Amino acid sequence: MAGEDGYGIPRSHPRYWSLVIREKLVEAFREGIVVPQGLIAHGRGECFDYLIGEETQPFAQEAIEAAAAALLLAEHPVISVNGNTAALAAEHMVRLAELLGAPLEVNLFYRTEERARKIAELLRRHGARRVLGVEDATARIPGLPSPRGMVSPNGIYRADVVLVALEDGDRTEALRRMGKTVIAIDLNPLSRTARTANITIVDNIVRAAPRLVEAVEKLRSRPRSELEQILARYDNNRVLSKALQHIAQRLMRLAQMGIAIEIG
Amino acid sequence: MAGEDGYGIPRSHPRYWSLVIREKLVEAFREGIVVPQGLIAHGRGECFDYLIGEETQPFAQEAIEAAAAALLLAEHPVISVNGNTAALAAEHMVRLAELLGAPLEVNLFYRTEERARKIAELLRRHGARRVLGVEDATARIPGLPSPRGMVSPNGIYRADVVLVALEDGDRTEALRRMGKTVIAIDLNPLSRTARTANITIVDNIVRAAPRLVEAVEKLRSRPRSELEQILARYDNNRVLSKALQHIAQRLMRLAQMGIAIEIG
Repeated sequence: MAGEDGYGIPRSHPRYWSLVIREKLVEAFREGIVVPQGLIAHGRGECFDYLIGEETQPFAQEAIEAAAAALLLAEHPVISVNGNTAALAAEHMVRLAELLGAPLEVNLFYRTEERARKIAELLRRHGARRVLGVEDATARIPGLPSPRGMVSPNGIYRADVVLVALEDGDRTEALRRMGKTVIAIDLNPLSRTARTANITIVDNIVRAAPRLVEAVEKLRSRPRSELEQILARYDNNRVLSKALQHIAQRLMRLAQMGIAIEIG
Repeated sequence: MAGEDGYGIPRSHPRYWSLVIREKLVEAFREGIVVPQGLIAHGRGECFDYLIGEETQPFAQEAIEAAAAALLLAEHPVISVNGNTAALAAEHMVRLAELLGAPLEVNLFYRTEERARKIAELLRRHGARRVLGVEDATARIPGLPSPRGMVSPNGIYRADVVLVALEDGDRTEALRRMGKTVIAIDLNPLSRTARTANITIVDNIVRAAPRLVEAVEKLRSRPRSELEQILARYDNNRVLSKALQHIAQRLMRLAQMGIAIEIG
């Protein structure tokens, strides 16, 4: 994204990247990729990112390595993509699918066929070869009302490991009830998705996605036993607890120092 | 708002009010009152409200009383209204203006004449008699590029006390440089607006606006000397510090208890 410009935001602005990401999302909204509720969800994410410090923290890096191991060990991994994910990380999601030989699946909370098609097109423009969930969303996740519960029988429905980003809590819970391993990218360490997933990457998808690609590239030549060890050592509750403590300590410190951080 | 319905959100939902408010905002967005960036800003607010506990805390109530005193003591108080404020609190902003004999002024960060007119119409539908800032935004706040810096010469430009809600940091700073007393309603205790304002109400505008109306109703019959005492006792840095500590302590407690709070 380093070469991007044209949003009229001066590079010297202390919150340049946050503002560029926001404009990307507004643009995707105008293109029909993102829904209004997705903009509100992005705002919530901005807030948590700002509380985290807008950098990938060690607890996130630990989750990223575990996620890479789980994806590499999976028999049928699937990369689930919604509007916000497509707007912010299409390129890296496509690269991840390619490295893993996994399908991408469009999966929308506010589903319309037109939006699903637009997202699939965007993924294909970024080089995606296999995009499920557009015409083939014919299987149902038990316990979720249609159309929110419709998925591809060749994708999420049969997957053993699903990567979701910026996902709704109901759906994460339903996937777990189906016995799937869920990897979530979610900036809110208190969300139901964060606490229900097997592995939660508490980080901005814009930073986490390229790091996840890197981790898969690094680990894919390693023996299965090593990947299994990484997974065995991983404790998601501990990681979430570290994330919360990090935010709380940061706020305490800021309260003591009386420092204003600018947001927005 | 108690009688409202029709958003298809079950009343039993643990986050009913948050979801109703969100739908109100999306509706106002569709009507051209709110801009996409306003939806993102609302999401940030949702996050901070959730961290605060979605209730008016003592530090907010203290600021509300001081704000009422400052508005009652003002010679030329002005109530500044932007898109999000109009969408969420038009009724109470109009009532406040009426109680104070103060004008309302439409003041937009992403200004278009059409949007300014729509917001003025909305305020008039709620009974507003004097709405400035639409055709008469001809004076400039020094240091702010046009059109962001354009205000009414009879409103914000000459005001001694300005109430702003969900405001941008640059503008708050510019108003302070003009020597005005700024009262801000802002859920982020770390924002530049929160830290630059003279009185910062760290609360959701949906809860703060009716409480501010109540406080003005309660205090308006009191002698000037009593209002001056309320203001003299008030310390905004202390209030902001209490807000930050409240959030940090709450997060620590949640981290220790391992409790999932659902957001969104």
